Amino acid sequence: MDTARPVPRRRGRPGHDVDAVLAAAVRLFNTHGYDATSMFDVAEALGITKSTLYHHVSGKEQLLAMAVDRAVDGLFEAAARVRDAETTATVRLKELVRSSVLVLAQRLEFVTLLLRVRGNTEVEQHALARRREFDALVTELARQAQAEGGIRADVDPATAARLLFGMVNSLVEWYRPERGRPEALADTVVQLAFDGLRTIDTTTDRGDQPEQ
Amino acid sequence: MDTARPVPRRRGRPGHDVDAVLAAAVRLFNTHGYDATSMFDVAEALGITKSTLYHHVSGKEQLLAMAVDRAVDGLFEAAARVRDAETTATVRLKELVRSSVLVLAQRLEFVTLLLRVRGNTEVEQHALARRREFDALVTELARQAQAEGGIRADVDPATAARLLFGMVNSLVEWYRPERGRPEALADTVVQLAFDGLRTIDTTTDRGDQPEQ
Repeated sequence: MDTARPVPRRRGRPGHDVDAVLAAAVRLFNTHGYDATSMFDVAEALGITKSTLYHHVSGKEQLLAMAVDRAVDGLFEAAARVRDAETTATVRLKELVRSSVLVLAQRLEFVTLLLRVRGNTEVEQHALARRREFDALVTELARQAQAEGGIRADVDPATAARLLFGMVNSLVEWYRPERGRPEALADTVVQLAFDGLRTIDTTTDRGDQPEQ
Repeated sequence: MDTARPVPRRRGRPGHDVDAVLAAAVRLFNTHGYDATSMFDVAEALGITKSTLYHHVSGKEQLLAMAVDRAVDGLFEAAARVRDAETTATVRLKELVRSSVLVLAQRLEFVTLLLRVRGNTEVEQHALARRREFDALVTELARQAQAEGGIRADVDPATAARLLFGMVNSLVEWYRPERGRPEALADTVVQLAFDGLRTIDTTTDRGDQPEQ
């Protein structure tokens, strides 16, 4: 990827330097695991010395913290935009699902790392706490959407939230940019989540029939 | 868990011995990671010596192979039952989703391990190949369901299969037996996947309206 080009070229552009360091570190974390990756590995991947690397970041934990923050911040920014929209909870839930797909597609490596975090360190505990906070927010939105009659009332809102984001989060396992535009995929996810796979024009015919 | 009681008590019941060894190993693999778990750790968790452990299994790789096989075999057994059912592809797809939820709930630890496999060893490569085979089978079923008009034609069948099983596989992240009967959860997943979250009785009213 472009962002992985050697850091020295970017001297004088500190923002870009950190981006390049972060991109290289996250790629290594995702490929070999966080524990198995050393600061030396990160420096080597960037073609710089370890001491140059320490000019940019204080250590591996800081890299992890910055990476999971990029993922979580993206999701919370989407949640904030949705919260401020003057519309129904149902439409807000739908928009949050749509925006989350876009965040995942744009920050794929960061979200991949976030979703693998198991809580062994303080940084990881913090990331897990923010994930739970986001889940609670989605559950609350689902509850409101149920209350206004926008989504079915026979599904527990926490379960609905988990299944919705199970679908969204699965992107880290299989989404590749060459598989199509993120916007089209986001539409598909929203459609599947809210209308289901069933053919539209037979919904009413089949709705009351018992299944075999 | 019950299955983790010391192996020596079970002498003379080789089937149970292997089950107990496997359960303990998989729990350690899922908690600390496969690489970070040694045969000594497995023996210790069972309260037996390493040499007793080697009476049961040839090594860590065999434990991994057996564990992922239990997960994958469960899914393929479900697929075989569905394949033999004399009904439409749409109903077979629905039943496969339902059965897969039950397999995941019943073999949660094994499937958790399967879904974390990254392909670093021959055993893991084999597990990944079988996962791909299962995915192809779900995609083919989705394609047939589309062809017979049972599910919407505007979603790529491979994407539909990935999103369906993204939802199903998310269970390993959040399902706990105390959260309710697997059968009820399976119904919810099928309902959400095929009918969507949208309220049933407003489907036709809302179907044609542009969203805000």
